[in-house]
Amino acid sequence: MNRVKEYQEMIETALSEIELPEVPKSLYDPIRYFLSLGGKRMRPTLSLLCTSLFRAVDENDAKMASSIELFHNFTLLHDDIMDEAPLRRGKETVHEKWDPNIAILSGDALMVKAYQQLAGTEVNLKQILDMFNRTSLEVCEGQQMDMDLEGKADSTKVEYLEMIRLKTAVLLGYSCWLGGKVGGADASSCKKLYEIGINAGIAFQLMDDYLDAFGDPESFGKVPGGDIRSGKKTILWFLANEEASAAKKELLASIYQQNSRDTEEVENVIDLFKELNLEEKIQGMIDQRFEKVKELVGSISAGEGAKDELLSYFRKLGKRKS
Amino acid sequence: MNRVKEYQEMIETALSEIELPEVPKSLYDPIRYFLSLGGKRMRPTLSLLCTSLFRAVDENDAKMASSIELFHNFTLLHDDIMDEAPLRRGKETVHEKWDPNIAILSGDALMVKAYQQLAGTEVNLKQILDMFNRTSLEVCEGQQMDMDLEGKADSTKVEYLEMIRLKTAVLLGYSCWLGGKVGGADASSCKKLYEIGINAGIAFQLMDDYLDAFGDPESFGKVPGGDIRSGKKTILWFLANEEASAAKKELLASIYQQNSRDTEEVENVIDLFKELNLEEKIQGMIDQRFEKVKELVGSISAGEGAKDELLSYFRKLGKRKS
Repeated sequence: MNRVKEYQEMIETALSEIELPEVPKSLYDPIRYFLSLGGKRMRPTLSLLCTSLFRAVDENDAKMASSIELFHNFTLLHDDIMDEAPLRRGKETVHEKWDPNIAILSGDALMVKAYQQLAGTEVNLKQILDMFNRTSLEVCEGQQMDMDLEGKADSTKVEYLEMIRLKTAVLLGYSCWLGGKVGGADASSCKKLYEIGINAGIAFQLMDDYLDAFGDPESFGKVPGGDIRSGKKTILWFLANEEASAAKKELLASIYQQNSRDTEEVENVIDLFKELNLEEKIQGMIDQRFEKVKELVGSISAGEGAKDELLSYFRKLGKRKS
Repeated sequence: MNRVKEYQEMIETALSEIELPEVPKSLYDPIRYFLSLGGKRMRPTLSLLCTSLFRAVDENDAKMASSIELFHNFTLLHDDIMDEAPLRRGKETVHEKWDPNIAILSGDALMVKAYQQLAGTEVNLKQILDMFNRTSLEVCEGQQMDMDLEGKADSTKVEYLEMIRLKTAVLLGYSCWLGGKVGGADASSCKKLYEIGINAGIAFQLMDDYLDAFGDPESFGKVPGGDIRSGKKTILWFLANEEASAAKKELLASIYQQNSRDTEEVENVIDLFKELNLEEKIQGMIDQRFEKVKELVGSISAGEGAKDELLSYFRKLGKRKS
């Protein structure tokens, strides 16, 4: 994984070189703070791995890729306000450390910084901007669908999958697409790269859902059932509603309708999920998407070494918390 | 003012043609609603008047100019949340009619729509995008400075003027600049157009400040002293602090430090402003900027008719509430 580490460092450098004025402090300090919270910079790393399919990666590519990280952080910053989240990566969120108004405004400025970073080059600018705009809007749509689904009693698995496609997967699709575009890939390869990102993105989200109920607490690093406890509907909830008997469905609904769920109830829900064989079912959904990723990567004409590197990064991400 | 009316209609058409999907309803309905609240579309109209200095205006120009209106509405939508404003143009604000989360997210989406509208053409895209990004960031900085100034006891007139330059004037500067750029103006004319917008923008804001204290209630359409009543520091507050005796300054500070101000106190403050001859002083500041606008317009090589039209629009805007 040497190349991944190298790319991550290039991205950190690109991020650290982004000009953020000293004043107004309360506009730019929250941005500096939020970017300093780190993370594995998955999206821009993926983007550079996709560029490397076609040619050697350079600093300008890292600058371009870092615009994705800026955008991603903007969405997190605003999502944290909407979710009233106290913590982000174990540290205070911006609206907690400062206040919601500052979080709204510094989020706005961070979004502009993403566009500024993207406008660093004139090559293919119109095409890249169009794709970025489309993706950004879709991410907003996904976030809105997520908020809507929570309050909607008759939501379906199809809606849930569409929500995670928009909220999570399209940005990975864009990341891979951008990497190819910047690397000089032809339209057909770019399209495949986009689909690779979409499939991987959905698979990662399904895996998160899976791990919440079935993950090994020790390697997973947190107590399972968090989503169930907070009443968040994940793919498991939708699958259970498809598979369960009428009586069990009613039980599930009654548990989720409560204001909160205790440990016993969480365990009952997990037991029900197990009874319905959801472990296997969701694993099948994940495998199917990773198979698609493998197939698509295989079909791109690029160096085998770089393709292996990309696939191995996907595998690493896929194993991250299981 | 026939041409202005024609341009306003072209802008309304461009705005009505912007694609806004039906779903998610709670993302796009607030945008539709906010854009339907109307307004005189001053910024894009100005932009088209500047294009008309160099050539006949067409529908594509109106599309480009309407991106400014989208951006402006995005800033209003988010500012309304931060200011906890109940009304916008006499109608419920988005965060009141829906909720703050929906207002944050639909504002975000509206900003992306502004970029999407701007990316409608490839001509000069990089230059336009760079200028738009710079302007957008400055508007964020201005809004943050505005929030900061409220809580800052030792703020100065210079800071206030810088705040209104960023919060209000740079977007007018950009509007005029964009109009010239799109119309094929040379770099020197574009620079002048930018300065025209800056000077006009500052003058308009100073005029708002002026009218709040000295406006004729009948033609102004609202009770004077609203800014004083709400404790908002405008240019008058800063000028008064420069001009007043130590005793009067203390009086002023004590009135503004209170949680609220009654009618008598508002009248006392207006009397103090009058005593200090601020009417004349602020009028001088406004005139100086309009003189600069006239001088700059005069120095651009373009048709006299179109230049007159632009100046007459500035005059009309300058008289709008006095």
